[in-house]
Amino acid sequence: MLTHVLVGDEGRTIELGWTDGKRTRFHAVWLRDNALDDKTRSAGNGQRLITILDIPAKTRIGAAAIKAGALEISFEPEGKTVSFPAQWLRANAYDRDETRQPGWTGDVIQRWTRATMQNAVPRASYPAALHGRGVLREWLSAVRTYGFAVMDGLPAESGALCKVSDLFGYVRETNYGRWFEVRAEVNPNNLAYTNLGLQAHTDNPYRDPVPTLQILSCIENTVEGGESSVVDGFAVAAALQTENPEGFRLLSSHAARFEYAGSSGVRLQAKRPMIELGPDGELICIRFNNRSLAPTVDVPFAEMGAYYAAYRRFAELIEDPSFEVTFKLEPGQAFIVDNTRVMHARKAFSGTGKRWLQGCYADKDGLLSTLAAIEHGFKEAAE
Amino acid sequence: MLTHVLVGDEGRTIELGWTDGKRTRFHAVWLRDNALDDKTRSAGNGQRLITILDIPAKTRIGAAAIKAGALEISFEPEGKTVSFPAQWLRANAYDRDETRQPGWTGDVIQRWTRATMQNAVPRASYPAALHGRGVLREWLSAVRTYGFAVMDGLPAESGALCKVSDLFGYVRETNYGRWFEVRAEVNPNNLAYTNLGLQAHTDNPYRDPVPTLQILSCIENTVEGGESSVVDGFAVAAALQTENPEGFRLLSSHAARFEYAGSSGVRLQAKRPMIELGPDGELICIRFNNRSLAPTVDVPFAEMGAYYAAYRRFAELIEDPSFEVTFKLEPGQAFIVDNTRVMHARKAFSGTGKRWLQGCYADKDGLLSTLAAIEHGFKEAAE
Repeated sequence: MLTHVLVGDEGRTIELGWTDGKRTRFHAVWLRDNALDDKTRSAGNGQRLITILDIPAKTRIGAAAIKAGALEISFEPEGKTVSFPAQWLRANAYDRDETRQPGWTGDVIQRWTRATMQNAVPRASYPAALHGRGVLREWLSAVRTYGFAVMDGLPAESGALCKVSDLFGYVRETNYGRWFEVRAEVNPNNLAYTNLGLQAHTDNPYRDPVPTLQILSCIENTVEGGESSVVDGFAVAAALQTENPEGFRLLSSHAARFEYAGSSGVRLQAKRPMIELGPDGELICIRFNNRSLAPTVDVPFAEMGAYYAAYRRFAELIEDPSFEVTFKLEPGQAFIVDNTRVMHARKAFSGTGKRWLQGCYADKDGLLSTLAAIEHGFKEAAE
Repeated sequence: MLTHVLVGDEGRTIELGWTDGKRTRFHAVWLRDNALDDKTRSAGNGQRLITILDIPAKTRIGAAAIKAGALEISFEPEGKTVSFPAQWLRANAYDRDETRQPGWTGDVIQRWTRATMQNAVPRASYPAALHGRGVLREWLSAVRTYGFAVMDGLPAESGALCKVSDLFGYVRETNYGRWFEVRAEVNPNNLAYTNLGLQAHTDNPYRDPVPTLQILSCIENTVEGGESSVVDGFAVAAALQTENPEGFRLLSSHAARFEYAGSSGVRLQAKRPMIELGPDGELICIRFNNRSLAPTVDVPFAEMGAYYAAYRRFAELIEDPSFEVTFKLEPGQAFIVDNTRVMHARKAFSGTGKRWLQGCYADKDGLLSTLAAIEHGFKEAAE
């Protein structure tokens, strides 16, 4: 609840008081730009109808008052009066003291290790997720929170993995196709198509934008070995940062290079750090793939020794079994990973029997959008 | 040409001398990791067969010599001997002094304004690009260098825009479909589907990853007005940086928020800066869209006034006609923009006549890969 309003700095700012004693300040131009009236925002689609240049540069708060719990403001020189719900102001307050360490993540992200996750792998059955919004919400929410989830009950047939992406979004088609076969081949253009074990990795770091989701589904799996495993890259990055802050700084402040030219007509290249931070230090993406790492040429000579030591230690931690969650995909099962966070690996397998998986890429924005829409619908229904 | 080799730091580094007097140093572990032999890299697909953990932590250069113009190195304790072509070493040298200003871009990027571009719009005819690798190379190269290009000679029919993306890559399907209609509607869920003018903007900044390419094709255009225009966001950002370095710093060091919830089941949100820099200060992405800019909550109160002033100035420069290149799309024409760099705008148009465009998204990694493959093919043919 709002308790007081105090216009300051000749109308350029305003201070709001709240019943819990908190005080939050806003700027006049920020409030004007974010006004919620139907001349500023389309009532139909919510988009802003004006540009920043439609707002006078000398915008000031002429008058402000609390009316029916909301904040009512008159802006000068426009002479425009707008009301802001108290709840909206509280939710969008930017006047706060926060000291965040590089590598921070939002509350919605929970890091995990083998100890916390091996017996708690998030899973749902496909028919239940298809027909139940609550089941789908839980499953999508697990992907947001933990960066991976398993799905059971799919048909053990080619293309079934698209049923998973259809639940929330769209396949990202690439030079590998809308989806691709993962089985041992004679002349593979990618080491994924052998029976070798694959070190935990993120997929396609040589692509920019990197595919933010990957789905792997199983059609047949009668080999010895060939288990799948996943590793929380955010948890490993945090462990590296704790024991070696300088190593974390090196991997996050210098770009690596990645490349792939295994197929005719394809020469993909990207330049991005192994540990990517946003401008405010938020941990936003892990890229880790020994197969496609190109020569690192963006680290100064003086730092290269320490950079390589940090890369080695990061790899050691990634291989540490205490971070690894393992499962063997059965026919009709699939798993999804947030390819900006969770690494996946494969154990080597024998030549007898058959292992046939299919993989595809999709994007996280669609998944998070679908989840937000379901959550919004549930909230509206509850109110 | 290599002139000398000097092993230093007890075998941990090596210094190479060149006929032009240049000296470049490398680390033993870097050389070992990037060895080109077929035990380290697959001869078939070029992927690395070993991980960093397969390389001994104490890797040293035991012996080094110039043999037949190449550098031959024996690594200890592995006792492994590998040869590096001089040209490869020169191309991948990381031992250099470079002081780059924030906002730098590679040599391949050329900034432009109306004065340099209005009469030099890169264009190609579709049949010529489809059948001529040289024509396609020039057109793709223009997109890489200038961030946009026009294509003529397409069929003036629905779906023709996919012929453009088929030349180099793959459509990015979204909640708008594989492609979407851009024409005036009665109850539009997006302001693009009105006859209003649209301020120069990048598309879908509320998506993460943002679509890195957009194609707009014209099927019918008999209205008054409705011209298209493009603005080089990298040129505008450089202009802002020149006149107001602190404003450039503010827009590049704080995230903005973008959102879209105009359609049922869709609630897209992203948190990214308007001017995005890589960890080494490279300018990598512009996001600018008044319609979908959500409340900015990641700028500290003390900096918000200056942040908004910088945003306003950035918008003024974007609207400055000296940056704007204008053309009117005719039926059978399309244009492509690098949506991480070049903004596009539309003039308002009259209600008489018909304006029917279609749009789709695609990704730049595929375009750059196809271009690199063509260039590689031409180079091989020349050698």
